[in-house]
Amino acid sequence: MRVGVDVGGTKAEAVAIDAAGSIAARVRLATGWGPDAVVRTIVAAVDALGTDAGIDTASVRSVGIGIPGQVDAATGRVTHAVNLGVDALDLAAAVEPALGVPVRVENDVKAAAVGAYALHGGSGAMAYLNIGTGVAAGIVIDGRLWRGAHGTAGEVGHVPIDPRGPLCRCGQRGCIESFAGGGAIAQRWGRPGALPVRDVFDAAEAGDPLARELRAGLAVGVAAAVGVLILTADVDVVVLGGGLTALGDRMLADVTAQLAANAAASPFLRSLRLDERVELLPAGSPAAALGAALIGAARDPEEVLTHG
Amino acid sequence: MRVGVDVGGTKAEAVAIDAAGSIAARVRLATGWGPDAVVRTIVAAVDALGTDAGIDTASVRSVGIGIPGQVDAATGRVTHAVNLGVDALDLAAAVEPALGVPVRVENDVKAAAVGAYALHGGSGAMAYLNIGTGVAAGIVIDGRLWRGAHGTAGEVGHVPIDPRGPLCRCGQRGCIESFAGGGAIAQRWGRPGALPVRDVFDAAEAGDPLARELRAGLAVGVAAAVGVLILTADVDVVVLGGGLTALGDRMLADVTAQLAANAAASPFLRSLRLDERVELLPAGSPAAALGAALIGAARDPEEVLTHG
Repeated sequence: MRVGVDVGGTKAEAVAIDAAGSIAARVRLATGWGPDAVVRTIVAAVDALGTDAGIDTASVRSVGIGIPGQVDAATGRVTHAVNLGVDALDLAAAVEPALGVPVRVENDVKAAAVGAYALHGGSGAMAYLNIGTGVAAGIVIDGRLWRGAHGTAGEVGHVPIDPRGPLCRCGQRGCIESFAGGGAIAQRWGRPGALPVRDVFDAAEAGDPLARELRAGLAVGVAAAVGVLILTADVDVVVLGGGLTALGDRMLADVTAQLAANAAASPFLRSLRLDERVELLPAGSPAAALGAALIGAARDPEEVLTHG
Repeated sequence: MRVGVDVGGTKAEAVAIDAAGSIAARVRLATGWGPDAVVRTIVAAVDALGTDAGIDTASVRSVGIGIPGQVDAATGRVTHAVNLGVDALDLAAAVEPALGVPVRVENDVKAAAVGAYALHGGSGAMAYLNIGTGVAAGIVIDGRLWRGAHGTAGEVGHVPIDPRGPLCRCGQRGCIESFAGGGAIAQRWGRPGALPVRDVFDAAEAGDPLARELRAGLAVGVAAAVGVLILTADVDVVVLGGGLTALGDRMLADVTAQLAANAAASPFLRSLRLDERVELLPAGSPAAALGAALIGAARDPEEVLTHG
């Protein structure tokens, strides 16, 4: 058994996969705040696979962890995991004694990219575009996660697409994330509510002008990210995941319509059929936990991770 | 010996490389117009390596060809090579009988990317950004040319960066190429002259408002392309080549200043040190011919091409 843990801002999800890569068990629990609590959450999640899901935890040979923040995959060190109250933490070293097996750590979007790739069939080139508070992508080519020269591959959220666009939290103006990030949309919407982007979609349908502008901007931003990923890396498909994709087909329909509109005046862009190369990650897919398990199971973190 | 031929719009360049990948001979001749003349040019270029440069052409084991246009690398078929008067041509099949050795064909920018990578030392991940009439890139990762799922990897010239920007020849508005492509700049400049972009640079220094706008736009466009390539693929370095880089440090200084200006308000972007990750291809480097020779020499066109 190989275990993967996706440490989210509010919930942690763990899966155990068998030798064929199939998910044998899956548990969820609340994430603690701060370095010690994050470590305890991960250990508890692995334990819960035994106590709650009936996995023989003695058969677990590796644990992979996906976590939001900057991750040095070579050392298992995490920095700037602000949503977890973690400034800096040698996470692999902190959990290995309790788990008793080798541990690998990866950024959660990159882990989700690996998991989404496996769920998608595990061949060719794929980008996973995470649309949550922020916007970032992971790129998997021939089963191998492309980390890039400095670990910033897939940072398409900070490609500027409009010099007169909104100020981005990164300091630039008109970044893709300033249009399509859930944090940026909620801030510009500025009204209370637990699901601000859903509220924006509803209000847009009711005719609210600001909501219509924000909803249109989300589609513009996601379509731009899809365009950048396909024009630059020429991936077969861009799979959309992350919190905002809970909006499902309401969001996907906006994005494919925007992609078609972008291509209307451009035979070149039409020839790329961008609108046919974007998909939603199936709702509820444990992509990040699965990807973390596959990353933990890899012999060499730089090498091929999965062929499905 | 392995031979590479770069078929340009006005001149063709051929190199012969030895087993170590070093250039043993180099010749140039004028390119003919139309399919038959292009085929004759390639055969003449290989012959000239013998007659003019003293290479024993009987020792040539392969020929690689770089050509501007859409290329199906698997079949050696070329389409839309408009600058050569070639609409469609089975180029590999057309030259193989005369050359008597296996022939591979690749798009000239992709061939130049392979050659630039070898010239640069042949390790890590590199993008070659060609700034000529149009703007396009080739990406080489760990010695392997990344062609992408549909052969469009590196088409960063058609990433839009300003919804109010100039109309691009591709039909979109505000593409990188509409700011940084030599064709677009010459068209907007609109005055006669053999070297319109050089004229623009000179006129900008003399204070001409349109020239200053076009020159600034060139830097904005190239800086945006560098940003897209590093944010998406996280290549170590972006090497600039193509006709406009004949402007040398005048152009590079504009681009690095623009990259620094882009990063001024963004700690995130500053942390990527984009302005230190862009270089000019050394003037006169036969990157495309060298890359074509390496591509022709590769055992499998999909596999590792060079490690320098």
